[in-house]
Amino acid sequence: MSISYATFDAAKTAARLFDDVAAFSADTAGVSRPAFSPTETQTLQYLENYARGQGLCVNYDAGKNAVFSLPEDADANKFILVGSHVDSVPNGGNYDGLAGVVAGLLCLARAKNEGIGFAKPVKVIALRAEESAWFGPCYIASKALLGQLADSELSAVHQGDGRNLGAHMSEIGINMNRVRQHKPLMDPDNIERYIELHIEQGPLLIEKNLPAAVVSGIRGNIRYKKIRCVGEAGHSGAVPRAYRKDPVLAMADLLTRLDESWLAILQKGEDLVLTSGMVSTDPAKHALTRIPDQVDFSLDFRSQSADALEAMRDLLRDEIRSVERERGVKFELDPELYTAPALCDEKMVDALSNSMAKVNLKPFSMPSGGGHDAAVFANAGIPSAMVFVRNRNGSHNPDEVMEIPDLIAGTNIIFEYLIEAAL
Amino acid sequence: MSISYATFDAAKTAARLFDDVAAFSADTAGVSRPAFSPTETQTLQYLENYARGQGLCVNYDAGKNAVFSLPEDADANKFILVGSHVDSVPNGGNYDGLAGVVAGLLCLARAKNEGIGFAKPVKVIALRAEESAWFGPCYIASKALLGQLADSELSAVHQGDGRNLGAHMSEIGINMNRVRQHKPLMDPDNIERYIELHIEQGPLLIEKNLPAAVVSGIRGNIRYKKIRCVGEAGHSGAVPRAYRKDPVLAMADLLTRLDESWLAILQKGEDLVLTSGMVSTDPAKHALTRIPDQVDFSLDFRSQSADALEAMRDLLRDEIRSVERERGVKFELDPELYTAPALCDEKMVDALSNSMAKVNLKPFSMPSGGGHDAAVFANAGIPSAMVFVRNRNGSHNPDEVMEIPDLIAGTNIIFEYLIEAAL
Repeated sequence: MSISYATFDAAKTAARLFDDVAAFSADTAGVSRPAFSPTETQTLQYLENYARGQGLCVNYDAGKNAVFSLPEDADANKFILVGSHVDSVPNGGNYDGLAGVVAGLLCLARAKNEGIGFAKPVKVIALRAEESAWFGPCYIASKALLGQLADSELSAVHQGDGRNLGAHMSEIGINMNRVRQHKPLMDPDNIERYIELHIEQGPLLIEKNLPAAVVSGIRGNIRYKKIRCVGEAGHSGAVPRAYRKDPVLAMADLLTRLDESWLAILQKGEDLVLTSGMVSTDPAKHALTRIPDQVDFSLDFRSQSADALEAMRDLLRDEIRSVERERGVKFELDPELYTAPALCDEKMVDALSNSMAKVNLKPFSMPSGGGHDAAVFANAGIPSAMVFVRNRNGSHNPDEVMEIPDLIAGTNIIFEYLIEAAL
Repeated sequence: MSISYATFDAAKTAARLFDDVAAFSADTAGVSRPAFSPTETQTLQYLENYARGQGLCVNYDAGKNAVFSLPEDADANKFILVGSHVDSVPNGGNYDGLAGVVAGLLCLARAKNEGIGFAKPVKVIALRAEESAWFGPCYIASKALLGQLADSELSAVHQGDGRNLGAHMSEIGINMNRVRQHKPLMDPDNIERYIELHIEQGPLLIEKNLPAAVVSGIRGNIRYKKIRCVGEAGHSGAVPRAYRKDPVLAMADLLTRLDESWLAILQKGEDLVLTSGMVSTDPAKHALTRIPDQVDFSLDFRSQSADALEAMRDLLRDEIRSVERERGVKFELDPELYTAPALCDEKMVDALSNSMAKVNLKPFSMPSGGGHDAAVFANAGIPSAMVFVRNRNGSHNPDEVMEIPDLIAGTNIIFEYLIEAAL
């Protein structure tokens, strides 16, 4: 006996889910869904209600993330995990994170509604706490899930209430014993693949007029939250050049050297981006007519290649030594923050690229500049991949925009993969 | 009949004057003698008492500055004017300004005590209100004296009480009619020469191990209180180099270009200093992982040569155009602030250099980087010159230091000039 299935309207469903979640997480500008907050929990509950209405199964894992599946996959021991996070930065956009969770739910709902089976069991996870804006550490929920949340991260304090991460996690009902013992909350051996859809957060797909892309790898980074260049204060008119130890010109010199090396590295075909996002002389002391005694600035290098990051670290040291010698200044570096690059699984990248062609999209792959939960799964040895969806105005701001048809294009790639995937 | 004169102890006198004035103008750190304040008036009255005790004559000019002379010169129609200012910046040093007034008084007191006559009548002026820290405009008292105080300057408001400069001047008894008509309060034709001793405010005399110098000229300046470089915000990891409009790297590029040109200009033997004293991304928006949308910075070019300043203005425009073209950013400049360089009178510089040799100092001349009242006299057509005295730790801060023997060395140069000067 054959059953007649309704055609599932993915676009309409997506628009409703985004609108409803935005409505209850709206802030003075954009949305705010703080990590481990009632708003985050409410988001999971809202998605749970939607999923149950579609006849899907819903569970919560030991990290209090919501896990959705077709009824027949609910007890599957091994599965492909599809997901992303539901938290946002303060006054952020609605799509950073939530888009990937909605994409996963759309796959399940479409399969359920249209009576299509997956090649392998699929579970969709709506993760909490990915954004570093709330506590400092990032990928908190996925790290906890895989037993990788460091003790130092658990003592990080919330920017708002000053209570630490451990306390916040405990408060929503997570049993912290396993977390503190660095034991996985979900057996990594059961996760055969991890797939995450995410908005691009950059301009490349808009520039290339493409709705979606397969991600080739996630850039790692070397960061210094503060580098202080210490020179010598003086009267702006009274100190000849030869006697100056001007920290601002020294910083400009260093940044220009790094920028020139960056260009040379790209010309050799290597992957790199470099940003100094925060620069400041001391507002309490600086003046138009005073050589400042010091200037602070941040540095963020990112690359898909661990070797390129190493090389930039060496280059930074060399250039600092050279500028110090030439200009009589000293650079004081905050401790380096390092995140390893994460390679996407090559076979999955190929398969997803094939899926792109099958759903009539031009296959295109690109690196991810931002970090994502996928990096945690990949670095835990789980074959992982990502799909990017075109979006305007970056992310982490209220102006972040994504078009629903682009999300559907990205979702179709994953759906195609899930019904075809031969593991 | 010959009179027996006591040898005048200039060092002891100077130390006492500085200590007494510091005592009643002490602030939480350093001294504060606000322009047109009761403390400033008290300083003039204190010096008046000292001068009268030495048998000197004291008058107040129409700008309420104190004017001292030997009794025989009190009614002289034409005279050499020696002086500086008694106001200070908030929490400033005790010597910036006051040293020049004390030097003038020491010349008079020594002449009176030792029975030595000057070649020409000499008047010593203790000017008020030179520092820009209080109202914004600088050289207020000397500009008023020479009929050059602009209407816009008179409406500048005090940083503390918000009342304007005109009101403050009126309050201490200055008849504002002449000031507002831009008529000199002292006939410039009567001022045959102007000489000002001042602390150096820079490190050159310390580096050269010299107690004093003759000033060759006072650097003018071109200033921009704020230049904003506007780029485009973006995720630090997600935007490839080719699509970036990074304002921080653009600013670094511009400053490095200007710095390189500065070196080239010095190598051609021209005079120039260049400072960017204030630099800042927006603390409300900047982040380690965000390409900032803009960065603000100040620029201050100074040179003894008006041509060099013009050339730097052109260079700045050219380099800005070039950086804008290469990096897709825009630079928005605050209105330019211009102060013309002031040349010291060549004959006076030569004569003062000769005086240096006569008092057993190694003749040495250097430009003044800071602006001084002498610039106002020079630019009004009055032959003017300056003597610099070595000092440590710059000026406009509580750590400013000057050694009394260095002041005496500088004072001796002027004293020698005054008893020898053939106009």
